[in-house]
Amino acid sequence: MKIYLAGPDVFLPDAIEIGRRKAAICERHGLTGLYPLDNSIDLAASDASRHIFLGNEAMMEGADAIIANLTPFRGPGADAGTVYELGYMAGRGKLCLGYCNDPAIYADRTRRFTTVSEQDGRLVDAQGLTVEDFGLPDNLMMIHALELHGGPLVLPRERPADVWHDLSAFENCVRQAAARLATVS
Amino acid sequence: MKIYLAGPDVFLPDAIEIGRRKAAICERHGLTGLYPLDNSIDLAASDASRHIFLGNEAMMEGADAIIANLTPFRGPGADAGTVYELGYMAGRGKLCLGYCNDPAIYADRTRRFTTVSEQDGRLVDAQGLTVEDFGLPDNLMMIHALELHGGPLVLPRERPADVWHDLSAFENCVRQAAARLATVS
Repeated sequence: MKIYLAGPDVFLPDAIEIGRRKAAICERHGLTGLYPLDNSIDLAASDASRHIFLGNEAMMEGADAIIANLTPFRGPGADAGTVYELGYMAGRGKLCLGYCNDPAIYADRTRRFTTVSEQDGRLVDAQGLTVEDFGLPDNLMMIHALELHGGPLVLPRERPADVWHDLSAFENCVRQAAARLATVS
Repeated sequence: MKIYLAGPDVFLPDAIEIGRRKAAICERHGLTGLYPLDNSIDLAASDASRHIFLGNEAMMEGADAIIANLTPFRGPGADAGTVYELGYMAGRGKLCLGYCNDPAIYADRTRRFTTVSEQDGRLVDAQGLTVEDFGLPDNLMMIHALELHGGPLVLPRERPADVWHDLSAFENCVRQAAARLATVS
């Protein structure tokens, strides 16, 4: 089983090393991890971003499943590129798994970035925009997509000291994918 | 042609009214707009968020196209729920169109929320995470997905005074969808 390894991990200073660690965990469980930075791209080319997109899309097409890292990135919620990929894989009917190294609910995460108050019975941010308040860790579309197209979002009991390098929740997803493979074959 | 109207518009104080305005624009162009809040959901039910998800997914299944509002929401980039839906519709092979009422490039948007500096030849934020620097308005996955699965992201020349209520860029997308319909039939 080939697993597309989606996440803002590609934006870390040690992006390549974390990809290697994730692929090694997959291998230990009899799976093959496909990591976006495995594609060789000429970053100096004027259309580099288009090549990255095409490489990622081809990789997703070749994968049986996705494990999405939905740890909050530059705001209260998950990285947009990762979320796009999760949606794409759900649309393609592939197995969707995900984890998030911050177990806080979305309303509490939002409070770290803006003032949240109650107005006419709904939670709103400083701009007056509704803050989702269903007790979920992120936007309901991703949370329920995982439940219905794969398995529930994996969360640690407590936020690990290093949210970008702790791979326990990731390995939990890999174990789930390996168990599915065993059931199917 | 049925168009799924995706966007953080559902989080506005006048969410229902903006949905009506969008549907009326679709109608003027001979199209049917499907707006998430058209689904009737009992928000007091304990599994309300799951019902919202199922309603939205069914609506997307019934639609031929999506017009995604990718105006930055609670951070430098688009709303995660909208991005998930764009990915899902791309994965389902539907026509993908989108607009954004903020023409600034992603690196400049990020500067509004965090310190951006150069480190070892790449732009990084205060956490040391890479800031995408391809001169695009948002994460490359959405920008190139639109190009390749529908039409390029529609941006205004200048940021309108009211980014949440100006529907010129939205109407441009509706016109594109109507033109496709004319070509197909």
